[in-house]
Amino acid sequence: MIQFRILAQDAETAARVCEIETPHGLLRTPAFMPCATQATVKTLTPVHLEELGVQMLLCNAYHLSLRPGAELVAQMGGLHRFMSWPRPILTDSGGFQIFSMAGLRTVTEGGVVFRSHLDGREIFLTPERSMEMQSQLGADIIMVLDECPAFPAEKAMARAAMERTLGWAVRCRAAHRREDQALFGIVQGSTYPDLRAECADRLTALEFPGYGIGGLSVGEGPDLMQEMIACTVERLPADRPRYLMGVGRPEDIVATVAHGVDLFDCVMPTRCGRNGLAFTSRGRVKIRNVAARAVGRPLDPACDCLACRRFSRAYLRHLVTASEVLGLTLMSLHNVRYYMRFMENMRQSILDKRFREFVEAQKEIPVEEREAD
Amino acid sequence: MIQFRILAQDAETAARVCEIETPHGLLRTPAFMPCATQATVKTLTPVHLEELGVQMLLCNAYHLSLRPGAELVAQMGGLHRFMSWPRPILTDSGGFQIFSMAGLRTVTEGGVVFRSHLDGREIFLTPERSMEMQSQLGADIIMVLDECPAFPAEKAMARAAMERTLGWAVRCRAAHRREDQALFGIVQGSTYPDLRAECADRLTALEFPGYGIGGLSVGEGPDLMQEMIACTVERLPADRPRYLMGVGRPEDIVATVAHGVDLFDCVMPTRCGRNGLAFTSRGRVKIRNVAARAVGRPLDPACDCLACRRFSRAYLRHLVTASEVLGLTLMSLHNVRYYMRFMENMRQSILDKRFREFVEAQKEIPVEEREAD
Repeated sequence: MIQFRILAQDAETAARVCEIETPHGLLRTPAFMPCATQATVKTLTPVHLEELGVQMLLCNAYHLSLRPGAELVAQMGGLHRFMSWPRPILTDSGGFQIFSMAGLRTVTEGGVVFRSHLDGREIFLTPERSMEMQSQLGADIIMVLDECPAFPAEKAMARAAMERTLGWAVRCRAAHRREDQALFGIVQGSTYPDLRAECADRLTALEFPGYGIGGLSVGEGPDLMQEMIACTVERLPADRPRYLMGVGRPEDIVATVAHGVDLFDCVMPTRCGRNGLAFTSRGRVKIRNVAARAVGRPLDPACDCLACRRFSRAYLRHLVTASEVLGLTLMSLHNVRYYMRFMENMRQSILDKRFREFVEAQKEIPVEEREAD
Repeated sequence: MIQFRILAQDAETAARVCEIETPHGLLRTPAFMPCATQATVKTLTPVHLEELGVQMLLCNAYHLSLRPGAELVAQMGGLHRFMSWPRPILTDSGGFQIFSMAGLRTVTEGGVVFRSHLDGREIFLTPERSMEMQSQLGADIIMVLDECPAFPAEKAMARAAMERTLGWAVRCRAAHRREDQALFGIVQGSTYPDLRAECADRLTALEFPGYGIGGLSVGEGPDLMQEMIACTVERLPADRPRYLMGVGRPEDIVATVAHGVDLFDCVMPTRCGRNGLAFTSRGRVKIRNVAARAVGRPLDPACDCLACRRFSRAYLRHLVTASEVLGLTLMSLHNVRYYMRFMENMRQSILDKRFREFVEAQKEIPVEEREAD
C-alpha cells in the first residue's frame, strides 16, 4: 500500500508537491516515470537511472505478459529483482497497448480478445487476468484494465467505453489481492467533459488510493487535452495521487501540474533521444544536423549528465551518424536527465512559492535551439 | 614516446610481464586492447571501460579517416579528447581493413588505391598519408602501413607483400613527425617461416620502438599461427614490446604469451557479446538458449561485472530475445571484464612464478559450459 502526503500547495494554481511512500521507498511528486516497457529503459542500465535521479519507472504488463511472461517474472522474484531496480515501479494494465498496438480485437463486457503483436496468438484479457498478471509482476502501483477509445470517438462509443471501464474497475478491485500493491482507477470519457466528470465521480465513489487519467494525448491536441484534465481533476479527491497517463512534452507537463496532477510517464525522452533529438535548456537540438559536425561544446552546458560532462556535440553526431549504440545511450541518458532536472526544478519552485516564475521561464525556452547559440 | 621495462620473466617459457609508459599513462602487459573501431567500444561508455580495468584501446585509422575524418578528430583535440578516453590508445594504420574490407583495390609501390566501403569513393592511401592521419588522430602508439596478404598466399605473392611492407615501413619512419607517438613496425611473411624471419630481421635493423606481428588469424589455423609467432618473436629484440594484431581467443592469447608477446587486440569479446555468447569461468554460454529461460543465477558467479552482480541469465536472455540494447551492453561489458580478468590473472601468475599452473588451469575450462553446471 502507499501513503500519500501533500507537502506544499501553490497559492495561485492547483500545483502541489507531494510525497508517496511505497514498499520500495519514497518518491516526491510532481514526478516523471521513464518507460521501461520491456523491463528496461531502452539503452540504459539501472546504475545510469539511479545516477540520473529517476525515482520510479513504468513497466508494461501487456508487453511483459507476452515476453518473457508474467509467470516467469514472478518465478524470478518479481519485476524489481528481475530488472534489478530497487526503487518504485508502476505497471500499466495493458489497456492502452491493446487498443493501440494489438491486431484485430473484440471487446465484450467479459474482457477483450486480441492478437499478440509479436506472434498473432489470440489472447483473452479480462480484468481478473490483468490483476493476476500485475500481481505476478509485483509493481508498487498497478492500474485497472480500461478501454481507451481512439480520437475522435462518437459520444455513444465514448460512453460505452467509459461504462466498460467502470465495470472493469469494480471487477479489478474485487480481484485485487496483494495488499502491498496500490490499485489505481482510470478516468476515461474521451473529449466529453460530462463523461469525464461522471467517470471521475463514479470512480471516486469506489475509493481507489489513486487515479489515472487515461485516453488523452491520442490526437486531440494540447488545448482540448488540458480542458479534459481540468474538468477531470476538479472531481478527483485532493488527498489521492493523480496520474496523467502517457504524457508528454515538458510544456504539457507543466500545464498539467498547474491543474494538480502528480505523476507522468512518456516514451518521449528515450524515443526522441534514440531518434537524435535532445532537449536542452536553450531548446531542442537535432544532433544529426551538419551544424553539429565540428562543435566542441556539449549538448547543454547547463546539464550535469555523462553525455554533457564528457562529450562534444561533434562526438555525439559521429556516434549517431555511424549508427553506434553508444549514441543512443548517451542521447537517452541526456534526455532522461533533462526530464528529471525539469521535474526537480518544478518541485523546488512550488516549495519556494515561485511556481509562476518557473512556468514563465519555461515559456522562454524556444522549441528549437537558435542557430546563433 | 614510450618507455618499456621488463618486470618479470617466466623461467620455462618466454612469457613476461612488462610495463609500457605512454604519454597517457602506464600499462602492464600482457595486455588486451578492446577495439574501439569507430572511436567507441561498441555499446559501452568510457566509464564502463575504466571500471572494467581496460588499460588501452585500439582505434582504426581506416574507419575514422572515412568517418568522421582524421582532420575533424584533430580539430576536436585528438582521439583521447574526442572519445573522452584518458588512457593510452593505439591506432591501426588501416592496412588490414583495406585488404579485408575495402572494395576493388590496386597496390603499387607508391601506395594502395581502394574504394571506401561506406560510399565507394576512391581513396589513395600512401605510407605518408597514413602517418598524417595517425598523427591527426593522436594515439600513443601508431602502426606502419602494411600489406596483409590473404591466406593461403603463394610464396611469390607473400614475398612481394613483405617487400612492400618493408619499403612502406621505411617511408613511414621517414614521415613520422610527432615525437609523443611511438611508431611500431609490422612483421608480415604469411605462413613462410623464412619470410617471417627475414622480415623480422630487416625490421629490427630499422630500430622501431615496438613490433607488430600482422597477417595472422586469417584462416591458417591455431597451430600454424603459433608456429609463425614463435619463429617471428625469436628474431625480435627482447627489449621492445611485441604486439600480435587481431588475436583472439583466450586460448590463442595464452599460447602466444608463452612465446613472449605483450599486446593483443580483437573484436571477439564485444562481437561475441553482441551475438549472445558469453565467456565464463566454466565455459562459453549461449544466452539465447532456452536453457537460460528461467535461470536465476548470473552468467558467471566468479565474475564481478555489473551484468553478473545485478542480473540473472533469465533477464539477460529476455533482453537479448526482445532485441533490447541493454542486452548488447551487458553481454559486451561481461565479456570485456572476462578478458581483463583473464589478462590480470595471467600477469599475476607470471609475477608469482606459476604461469605453468595458469596455462594448465586454462586447459581445464571446457569450450562450452556443461549442462549440469
